[in-house]
Amino acid sequence: MRKFNANYVFLFYDVGEKRVNKVFKICKKYLYPYQNSVFRGPITPSQLLILRAELSKKIDNEHDFISIITFKNQLDFNEEIIGSKKENNSEDLFL
Amino acid sequence: MRKFNANYVFLFYDVGEKRVNKVFKICKKYLYPYQNSVFRGPITPSQLLILRAELSKKIDNEHDFISIITFKNQLDFNEEIIGSKKENNSEDLFL
Repeated sequence: MRKFNANYVFLFYDVGEKRVNKVFKICKKYLYPYQNSVFRGPITPSQLLILRAELSKKIDNEHDFISIITFKNQLDFNEEIIGSKKENNSEDLFL
Repeated sequence: MRKFNANYVFLFYDVGEKRVNKVFKICKKYLYPYQNSVFRGPITPSQLLILRAELSKKIDNEHDFISIITFKNQLDFNEEIIGSKKENNSEDLFL
């Protein structure tokens, strides 16, 4: 793995029902809800540290799983969409 | 968006219940199931074209949503895991 300062992330989670809301609320402080159990967005390295610490405290390490894919910036990936995005229940997404 | 030949992808989908199995089966031909409604893996540009065409034929464009995040290679992102991955119901994952 190359070492770099992450500035953009995709985060997806698979957590127990009792913890889904807590995880959603924590993620929403730093990232945008993109799809069910998927968040994304620009983030600073220090915010990422705080986000990770908050999530680690809330989840059940044996039964829950969170994957955070980090990039230097948005130029390091492309995105292709098939179909159409459902209107999100939260405020408009800034992509 | 920079133009490059994708060789690694993350794919996540949010599709109607009637089409979930079909989408899962198509994705599994080219990628590895990583988490519920998330696939990942190395892929050639031509395989990606075929995968996209097959998915486009199967989904309901108005109600379903598939996002394919593409990279030049695995060095363009890092991954952080919190918690533990559930053993997948399919064969062992080669990551």
